Amino acid sequence: MNHTKTFALGLALAALPLTGFAQETAVVVEEVEAVAPGFDEIGPYIMTTLLFLVGGFLVFWMAAGFAMLEAGLVRSKNVTTQLTKNIALFSIAAIMYWLVGFNLMYPGDGWWMAGYVGPFFSITSLEPVGLAADAAALDYASVASDFFFQLMFCATTASIVSGTLAERIKLWPFLIFVVVLTGFIYPIEASWQWGGGWLSEAGFSDFAGSTLVHAAGGFAALAGAIVLGPRLGKYAKDGKVVPMPGSNLALATLGTFILWLGWFGFNGGSQLAAGTVGDITDVGRIFANTNMAAASGAVAALILTQIMYGKVDLTMVLNGALAGLVSITAGPLDPSLFGALWIGAVGGVIVVFTVPMLDKFKIDDVVGAIPVHLIAGFWGTLVVPVYTADASFGTQILGFVAIGAFVFITSLIVWFILKATMGIRVSEEAEINGLDVSELGMEAYPEFSKG
Amino acid sequence: MNHTKTFALGLALAALPLTGFAQETAVVVEEVEAVAPGFDEIGPYIMTTLLFLVGGFLVFWMAAGFAMLEAGLVRSKNVTTQLTKNIALFSIAAIMYWLVGFNLMYPGDGWWMAGYVGPFFSITSLEPVGLAADAAALDYASVASDFFFQLMFCATTASIVSGTLAERIKLWPFLIFVVVLTGFIYPIEASWQWGGGWLSEAGFSDFAGSTLVHAAGGFAALAGAIVLGPRLGKYAKDGKVVPMPGSNLALATLGTFILWLGWFGFNGGSQLAAGTVGDITDVGRIFANTNMAAASGAVAALILTQIMYGKVDLTMVLNGALAGLVSITAGPLDPSLFGALWIGAVGGVIVVFTVPMLDKFKIDDVVGAIPVHLIAGFWGTLVVPVYTADASFGTQILGFVAIGAFVFITSLIVWFILKATMGIRVSEEAEINGLDVSELGMEAYPEFSKG
Amino acid sequence: MNHTKTFALGLALAALPLTGFAQETAVVVEEVEAVAPGFDEIGPYIMTTLLFLVGGFLVFWMAAGFAMLEAGLVRSKNVTTQLTKNIALFSIAAIMYWLVGFNLMYPGDGWWMAGYVGPFFSITSLEPVGLAADAAALDYASVASDFFFQLMFCATTASIVSGTLAERIKLWPFLIFVVVLTGFIYPIEASWQWGGGWLSEAGFSDFAGSTLVHAAGGFAALAGAIVLGPRLGKYAKDGKVVPMPGSNLALATLGTFILWLGWFGFNGGSQLAAGTVGDITDVGRIFANTNMAAASGAVAALILTQIMYGKVDLTMVLNGALAGLVSITAGPLDPSLFGALWIGAVGGVIVVFTVPMLDKFKIDDVVGAIPVHLIAGFWGTLVVPVYTADASFGTQILGFVAIGAFVFITSLIVWFILKATMGIRVSEEAEINGLDVSELGMEAYPEFSKG
Repeated sequence: MNHTKTFALGLALAALPLTGFAQETAVVVEEVEAVAPGFDEIGPYIMTTLLFLVGGFLVFWMAAGFAMLEAGLVRSKNVTTQLTKNIALFSIAAIMYWLVGFNLMYPGDGWWMAGYVGPFFSITSLEPVGLAADAAALDYASVASDFFFQLMFCATTASIVSGTLAERIKLWPFLIFVVVLTGFIYPIEASWQWGGGWLSEAGFSDFAGSTLVHAAGGFAALAGAIVLGPRLGKYAKDGKVVPMPGSNLALATLGTFILWLGWFGFNGGSQLAAGTVGDITDVGRIFANTNMAAASGAVAALILTQIMYGKVDLTMVLNGALAGLVSITAGPLDPSLFGALWIGAVGGVIVVFTVPMLDKFKIDDVVGAIPVHLIAGFWGTLVVPVYTADASFGTQILGFVAIGAFVFITSLIVWFILKATMGIRVSEEAEINGLDVSELGMEAYPEFSKG
Repeated sequence: MNHTKTFALGLALAALPLTGFAQETAVVVEEVEAVAPGFDEIGPYIMTTLLFLVGGFLVFWMAAGFAMLEAGLVRSKNVTTQLTKNIALFSIAAIMYWLVGFNLMYPGDGWWMAGYVGPFFSITSLEPVGLAADAAALDYASVASDFFFQLMFCATTASIVSGTLAERIKLWPFLIFVVVLTGFIYPIEASWQWGGGWLSEAGFSDFAGSTLVHAAGGFAALAGAIVLGPRLGKYAKDGKVVPMPGSNLALATLGTFILWLGWFGFNGGSQLAAGTVGDITDVGRIFANTNMAAASGAVAALILTQIMYGKVDLTMVLNGALAGLVSITAGPLDPSLFGALWIGAVGGVIVVFTVPMLDKFKIDDVVGAIPVHLIAGFWGTLVVPVYTADASFGTQILGFVAIGAFVFITSLIVWFILKATMGIRVSEEAEINGLDVSELGMEAYPEFSKG
Repeated sequence: MNHTKTFALGLALAALPLTGFAQETAVVVEEVEAVAPGFDEIGPYIMTTLLFLVGGFLVFWMAAGFAMLEAGLVRSKNVTTQLTKNIALFSIAAIMYWLVGFNLMYPGDGWWMAGYVGPFFSITSLEPVGLAADAAALDYASVASDFFFQLMFCATTASIVSGTLAERIKLWPFLIFVVVLTGFIYPIEASWQWGGGWLSEAGFSDFAGSTLVHAAGGFAALAGAIVLGPRLGKYAKDGKVVPMPGSNLALATLGTFILWLGWFGFNGGSQLAAGTVGDITDVGRIFANTNMAAASGAVAALILTQIMYGKVDLTMVLNGALAGLVSITAGPLDPSLFGALWIGAVGGVIVVFTVPMLDKFKIDDVVGAIPVHLIAGFWGTLVVPVYTADASFGTQILGFVAIGAFVFITSLIVWFILKATMGIRVSEEAEINGLDVSELGMEAYPEFSKG
């Protein structure tokens, strides 16, 4: 009831015992409201919670995607170790993000804490069973669903690292790095933006994490690759780069398709709302753009490798699709489909050019994770202002550099400490025999003779 | 309103000028409506959009299913090529359907165009970011989500073709065919029915695409197989058919499970609505029927191969499940579970009988896509009137023949042009050495010696 | 406002132009109610139906997970057979659960029957197409979606059995056992709890089936393993256990990730409601707890195998994750995240200790299904009262023992009958040559020479 009407009504009711009438009016309204909280009020909460759960299980699935991609791109003698790292890193991330990460990442937001979670560095708790509608923050979603969703992003960051460092890193030092990365490094830098920190206030724009997740993972991997050094025999004395082809391209392709699928949850879920027409429509835009960028990244790499090398290179096409996905991740909502097309295509082009470039610096990135996640991540972050009005190139670069520097330096320190204390690299003999036999005593394909 | 209040109200209103009261009452109603558009109005839009997004990612997943199925059923020397074709065809479909297909397929429906998309053959645009509730077509779903969902069907049609033509077709002519198929052939024929075209007006019934997607893909594959010819050595001079077993039945089985999973989105999403009790209940019916038809197709092939050959044939069981799925796709809603059972079982039987039949015509279909998608697609289309009241056998046959003829003839022309210009078949030497080494220079399993 | 009240109101308003007022007031109320059944009423039905469909397709996906896990853990000469069993058992379960199981499992609930389904042992029917809102049980979900969801649990029970008995059981006797298990044994014991039977009335608590599904499958497998005997050469005459490593750990890891993903549907969907704030929030809790238990199970096995054997054992880590999942399944809602952590971790520890223990009894469980599903299932069932107020240790043990005894004894009888009539074990020669060549004449990896 607006004021004008109230006033007009007041005049009309001049002869009326005012209290009685007011009471009656209230009753009518109360009757309507007595259905509350109805779907009008709880619908958005339910839909956004559902978005986090569906988005979360899709991003969980990316852990399997990384595992398959990496298992397919390493040589068969290192497959068991690569699989072990992937399932272990996800599991460790799940525990560390609960133990430390989640509250460290969202320090300033009273909502997170209210009633359920304790102070900094404490263990995250969930809302009570059978939460009453009036006890819920109906303008958002359940804490548990949000925790579940955000955890998957933390784990993804760690997944990126394992591919680069494959085939020569020891298992346990790698897992200890994962503990630090998922418990501290990622939550701190992610907090700068998604926890409402200084980057967010500076106007940095990274919708689903081209920088916060992908470049961050890439920087942690880069630091590790520098400290660890290349695989034996990768760079011959005459300067030639020795190709070490992956053992199972069917698995690598499967991994790429899994990641592509999971990315719908990664980007779509990052809308963080699904209970209004505007929000669910935006989630739809994000799905369509995400798919387009992946497709154009793949096609760009397909065409470019044909032109440059005279033949298509499947691993480049796979990495092209992934680079397209990383590229659109900083801004999957605002671009048109044509925008997503060219942003993703540039991502695919970047991969084709930067994979050989890394080899020039003798940085041995087994699966191409640095080009895909760090360099395409930079591209995706940089291009945001083209379509997003309130973003600026300066701030985008600032954010990328700040997060990159923080993750790179802290990772470098951790890698150096690990190297100095327990050592991070297997022996030459172990590397030549393969980590599966030497570290785990278990081959992935024990019955198939090696060519 | 309780009695006390009613009584008090009555007394208080004794002297009231009635108009004033009426006005107040009106205000009350406005207050109630002011919450609008509430979930009553936007709920169906949100749920249907969600259906398209979930359905769409499930159908996307079918692209991975085809890739794994086909990679598992070709010989190891052609696996990299088969994987490359699959990820490339999906990516090309995603671009072509945006560039041409979607608007070509839905030409007559003002809704599609309104504000977002241009005329024929133009590029599809999405609705603006943060769409207001009153700007949305609340009786349907977001354009982006629908585009995303429909695109996956277009891509599926192309996926069907790649399996049949495996192990001897050149990569680029195949991809050019995909450009034509996904940009023009599929959208035109699909438009006849789903775009509100003449077949739809004639009363043709094809709920999720037994004919429009599966048989269409099968006809395009058949045309290609005829123009391309069989693999070297497949049909010996003495008339014997030489078996060329797939290199990895674990992958083929995985692919089948992926397709089965994706099919819930394929058929369930084709309800095109999920925001009413009737619609969501129908989606449930479709899930149950789709699962039943797949199961009965598998069991039929299981039993039949045991009876006919004295032993179960896994590839037939996999294709039986897929044939069951194709069979139910034209009408997954109306049959009872018993209906789905026998429709799917007949699909499984069809596969067991028609796979060898194709060999008699020396049509070399590497993965059995023509029996599964074309022949079971015909069966599924034909059987619709048994359970669907407003369908007729005559119209079903008309639709199948019309679409079959159109796709077959246009495909044949495209294949002939490609053959005449750039050639579609690799050299004999390349075919013997395998396309992976000869065309791409990259083996899928480089370390495993071949038996 | 009902007529009586309107009448009373009318009398009280003696001085008022009566008809006008009453009419107007009535209009106000009617206008509000005329929107019915709006989303307030149908929203919960739609959301719960959606939960069953999404949960159901996730649990369906577990069938693929079991197939990949088992195919990866058997030797390559038995892979085709293992894949065949897995797709066949799911298909048979789908048919048997419809033909008998569903109605046998829910005998006493009028809701199931009303209008759609017939008496005991009859065929399950679905609700009619285009169900009207006022014909639906709006406080629950669609029958079809529930049937779809419940069917997947029945199939899961059967999936558990196939892994244990791999590499020496004949195909058809195994499938006949599946017919009995999915049509009768599982539905009867599940009915005791989920069908509202005596265990449910006794206060037994098994949220998603640690006992009803997992331990039941484990007991059926145990009975089979005893009747069938170990693989040739598994237990050497000198008492040593001969390791028979799985042929493809990449597949086994993929299978584990698939199962982990599917488990979100398994446990989350078992909330059986998603249309209120409390329910969807609970589903979120369940997702978070389920993930935590899997992660801690994996980490526990990771650390423990390192400590016990001096090196990490990937297959134990995979089984540790699965044991964590089984452990949390009886009560995934009530524990805190810390509760899920230690419950899952104990599950992981159990697997590491009980896998070798089974070998001492010369029970040959090829994939470790008995430790994972039966023993961790017991643990998960037993621990429920720690977090669930209305559960007691006594009743939990009673339920486990009752179901265990029923499933074990009936399974034992069926296995003995099968052994006595058609025989359940392949010949020694067939076992040595592998079931793929001897039973199916089709190798899974025909081109790869065996080491």
